Amino acid sequence: MSLIQGLVSEFKRLPGVGEKTAQRFVYSLLKKSDREAMRLASQIREVVEKVHPCAICGSFTEFKECGICTNQNRDVSLICVVEEAHEVEAIERSSGYSGLYHVLGGRLSPLDGVGPQELNLASLFGRIKNSVPSLQEVVIATNSSVEGEATAVYLEALIKPLGPKVTRLARGIPVGGDLEYVDTSTIVEALAGRTEM
Amino acid sequence: MSLIQGLVSEFKRLPGVGEKTAQRFVYSLLKKSDREAMRLASQIREVVEKVHPCAICGSFTEFKECGICTNQNRDVSLICVVEEAHEVEAIERSSGYSGLYHVLGGRLSPLDGVGPQELNLASLFGRIKNSVPSLQEVVIATNSSVEGEATAVYLEALIKPLGPKVTRLARGIPVGGDLEYVDTSTIVEALAGRTEM
Repeated sequence: MSLIQGLVSEFKRLPGVGEKTAQRFVYSLLKKSDREAMRLASQIREVVEKVHPCAICGSFTEFKECGICTNQNRDVSLICVVEEAHEVEAIERSSGYSGLYHVLGGRLSPLDGVGPQELNLASLFGRIKNSVPSLQEVVIATNSSVEGEATAVYLEALIKPLGPKVTRLARGIPVGGDLEYVDTSTIVEALAGRTEM
Repeated sequence: MSLIQGLVSEFKRLPGVGEKTAQRFVYSLLKKSDREAMRLASQIREVVEKVHPCAICGSFTEFKECGICTNQNRDVSLICVVEEAHEVEAIERSSGYSGLYHVLGGRLSPLDGVGPQELNLASLFGRIKNSVPSLQEVVIATNSSVEGEATAVYLEALIKPLGPKVTRLARGIPVGGDLEYVDTSTIVEALAGRTEM
C-alpha cells in the first residue's frame, strides 16, 4: 500500500468520511505548503498527548480540571448529565444553561456490552453525595434513543434516593419545526408535556 | 484558544469540512486509543515528508518517479494531460486508459494569477520533444470549465507543431444520464459529436 493510500484509509476512519472525501483530504494536504500540512499532524499529536477527561466531570480538557468545573460563576446547584463530551459543547452553544456537567462516556447498551461499569457513574454518584445539599437538581440529558431513555430511567432510580431533584430535557416540537413534518411520537410527547400559556 | 478548538479550526481547512464536521473529527479521535489517533498524525507527517511530485509526470509519488511512469507495460505512445494529480486516480479507476500522464498542477486562469509559468508546462513540452516519434497522441483531459477549455486550446496550439496528434475527451450524455436532466450545452455537444452506429 502506498503512503497516499495509507493516509486515505486512515482518514476514512473519521466519522462520515468515505473513499472520495478521504482522497480529497489527502490531495488538499499535498497541495498545501509542507508547513501548513504539518500543522494538522502536530495539532493532532498535541491534542492526543495533552487532552484527557476532566478529573471532575469527564469532559475533555487539557488541564487537570475543565474550564466549566473550575469556573466560580457556574451554578453549582445544577448538574447536567450527558452521554458524550461533545454534547457539552452543544449545550454550551445554546447559552441556556449555567450549571455544571457530567459526561457518562456512553449510554447503557447491553447489546454492545456497555453496562454501568463501562460508564463514568461512580464519579457521578460520588459527586452528588459530596455536593448535597448545595446540589439541588440533576438534569438528565441523555439522547432520546431507546438506550438513552433506558440510561435516564436507570440514573433516575439511583440519583433520587441521594436527595436532588431529577429532571430531564423537555421533548416536543423543535423550534421552527413544522407540525406536518414532525413524527407522531414527538407529537404524542408534545401533547403530553403541553404547558399552560 | 484551547487545543481542541485549535484542532477543530485546523480540520476546517480541509475541503468541505465545516465547524460541526471538524468537531466530530476531533471527538472521534479523542474517543480512540492514543495509538490509533496518533497514527493519523504520523501518517500525515510521513506523507508530507515523503510524497512529492513525480520527476517525469508531476503526479504525487513517494519515489523519484511514479509507478505509472516507471511501469514498462504502459503505452508510451499516449500522454494524457490532466489538471490535478487526483484526476490521474479518477482515470486509473476507470481502467479505460493504459498510456502515460502529465499533471499540469492547475489550469490557465489569468484572473487568479495562473499563467503558463505557474503550470507544469516546460516539462510537458520537453517530454513531448524527447518522446516523438514513439509518442503519437496527447489526450487533453482538462476539466470542462471555461478555464479548462482555454487551457486545452492553448495546449493544442503549442503541442500540434511538435508532431503528435492532439485529442480531447469526448463530451456527451453521461452513461446512465437521462436526456431530460442533461443541460442544453451538453446536448449540443452530444449532437455535434454524434457517432455512426
